[in-house]
Amino acid sequence: MLYFEKYHGTGNDFIIFNGIENKYNNKMELAQKVCHRNFGIGADGMMIVEKSEVAHVKMDFYNSDGSLAPMCGNGIRCFAKYVFDNKIVDSTDFKVETLAGIMKVKLTHLENKANSVSINMGKPYFNLEPQDVILDVDIKEYINQIFTVENQNFNMSILTMGTLHAVIIVENLEQIDIGHYGKLIETHSMFPKRINVNFTEILDKENIKVKTYERGVGKTLSCGTGSAAAAIITSLLGHTTRNVNVQVPGGTLTIEQKQKGIYMTGPAQLICRGEYNHPHPNQL
Amino acid sequence: MLYFEKYHGTGNDFIIFNGIENKYNNKMELAQKVCHRNFGIGADGMMIVEKSEVAHVKMDFYNSDGSLAPMCGNGIRCFAKYVFDNKIVDSTDFKVETLAGIMKVKLTHLENKANSVSINMGKPYFNLEPQDVILDVDIKEYINQIFTVENQNFNMSILTMGTLHAVIIVENLEQIDIGHYGKLIETHSMFPKRINVNFTEILDKENIKVKTYERGVGKTLSCGTGSAAAAIITSLLGHTTRNVNVQVPGGTLTIEQKQKGIYMTGPAQLICRGEYNHPHPNQL
Repeated sequence: MLYFEKYHGTGNDFIIFNGIENKYNNKMELAQKVCHRNFGIGADGMMIVEKSEVAHVKMDFYNSDGSLAPMCGNGIRCFAKYVFDNKIVDSTDFKVETLAGIMKVKLTHLENKANSVSINMGKPYFNLEPQDVILDVDIKEYINQIFTVENQNFNMSILTMGTLHAVIIVENLEQIDIGHYGKLIETHSMFPKRINVNFTEILDKENIKVKTYERGVGKTLSCGTGSAAAAIITSLLGHTTRNVNVQVPGGTLTIEQKQKGIYMTGPAQLICRGEYNHPHPNQL
Repeated sequence: MLYFEKYHGTGNDFIIFNGIENKYNNKMELAQKVCHRNFGIGADGMMIVEKSEVAHVKMDFYNSDGSLAPMCGNGIRCFAKYVFDNKIVDSTDFKVETLAGIMKVKLTHLENKANSVSINMGKPYFNLEPQDVILDVDIKEYINQIFTVENQNFNMSILTMGTLHAVIIVENLEQIDIGHYGKLIETHSMFPKRINVNFTEILDKENIKVKTYERGVGKTLSCGTGSAAAAIITSLLGHTTRNVNVQVPGGTLTIEQKQKGIYMTGPAQLICRGEYNHPHPNQL
C-alpha cells in the first residue's frame, strides 16, 4: 500500500506522493495506474515531492498518460498546499523546482492549512511567430480583431502566456457552443500548431467569466494560463482593471498584473487521503 | 473526514461506506459529491452497507448522479468483497438485500480476502414485448436473425436478462466501430425504449469476447447482464458450451447456466481506502 493524498485546484485533480520519505520506481507506469479513472484512484496528473538542491522542494509532475509535464498552474497550488500542510516546508513563501524552472509560491492559511496559493506565471508575449500564426497581412500583433468562422464574427486577440492563447470576448457565454466553436478555432488553418481558445464574458470592471477549449483536450473545468491571458486582454482593451477575478467552471482564480509578472491566486483543496493498493506489475 | 474504500469490478468502480458503524445524511448529495471525477474521489456509483431484517446485510446503491439503482452485477461483487474483507459477515455464502430483491452471493478467498464472487442473476426471458420491440412480422422470439443498418448486415438475437439486450455475433470485434453501430442500433425505431447492444466474437467453445454499448451510456468497460446475455445466445446457437468465459474490456467474467439460474463469477479489487474530506454543503 502506498500513502497518497488527492487534491483539486479549480477542478484539475492530482494524486500526490511523498518522495522524500519513500522511493518510487517506474513513476511513468505508477502515474498511468494511479490516475486511471476506473482502475485507479483517478486524476488528471500525479506529483511526487522530491528534495531539491536549488529550491526548498522539487515537484516531479506526470500527466495521466505517464508523460512528464514541465508545469501546471492548478497543479502547483495543490503541490504547495501538500508540502505546507504536511510540514515539509515551514514557511508560507517558498521556491519550487520544476522542469520549467524555479517557481516562487506564496500562500495564505487558516489553522495551519493552506487555503489559497499565489504564483508568478511570468510575462505575456504579444509578438506573432510565423510558425504559430499564419496571416495574409503583415502585422506583428493580433489584438481586438474580427475573426470569422462559419459566418460567425468573433472578437479575437492572440498572445503567448506560457503557451499560445486566443482570447475571444463574447456578450453571453451561455449562448456560445464552446465545444463546436472551440474545436473549429483550435484546428483552423491559421494556427498550424493549433491554439487554446478562451471564450470570455465581461461581468464588470473586476470580474470576468472564462470557458477554455484546451488544445488537444477540449472543454476543461479551468485553465490557469488561459485565465491569465483573458484577464490581460480585457484589461489591455480597457474593459477591466489590472486585477481581475476570473470565474471558470471549476471555481474562481484571481489574476494580478504586477511589475514582476502575472500573479495567479487560487484555491487548492484536499479531496481524500489514504492508502493506494498498488496492483502487481502485470495487472491493470 | 469519512472513512471510505474504493473498488472496481472489471472496470466499474464504486465508493463504499459502512452505514452500520456510521450514519450518513443526504445520501443522494453524498453520492454526487464523492463520485465526481474531479471534485470528488471519483466513481461510477456509491454503496452504503446497512443492516437488513431479511438478509445478512443490505446494499444501498446510488448512481453517480445521485439516483437510486436497484442492482448492479459488478457493484454487488465489490460490495460482497467489502463486507467479507471487513468481517461484517463471517461466511463465504450470504444474502444481500437490494431494491431488486434478495441476492445470494458466494465467494472464494485467499488469505481471508475475497478474490472472486459469484451471484445468481436469475433467468433469461425470450418473449418479445410489444412495448420493447416493434416488428412488422408476427413472431414471438427474435433469435439468430439478420438485422440491417446502413447496408451492413448483423446477426442479431434479442432477450431480456435483467434488462433488454441485443446480442450481435461478429467475425472480428476489432473491425467493428462499436460507438457508431452501437448508437445506431440502440436508437433504432425498432426499439422504442432503446436497447443495450452486445457485440460478441466467438473465440472457441468456452471463450467469447464482448463489447457492450449500454443504453443511455455508450461504450463501457464491462456489463454483467450483457455478458450473460451474450453467453446465453452463443450457447443456444451451439457456438459455445453452457459455461463460458467472457472477455470484456475491463477483465473477464465467467457465466454458468444452471438449473437455478444464470451465475456470474468475476473479480472485485480494492483500489484505495482512506478518509474523504467531505466539503461543506454549499461547496462543490
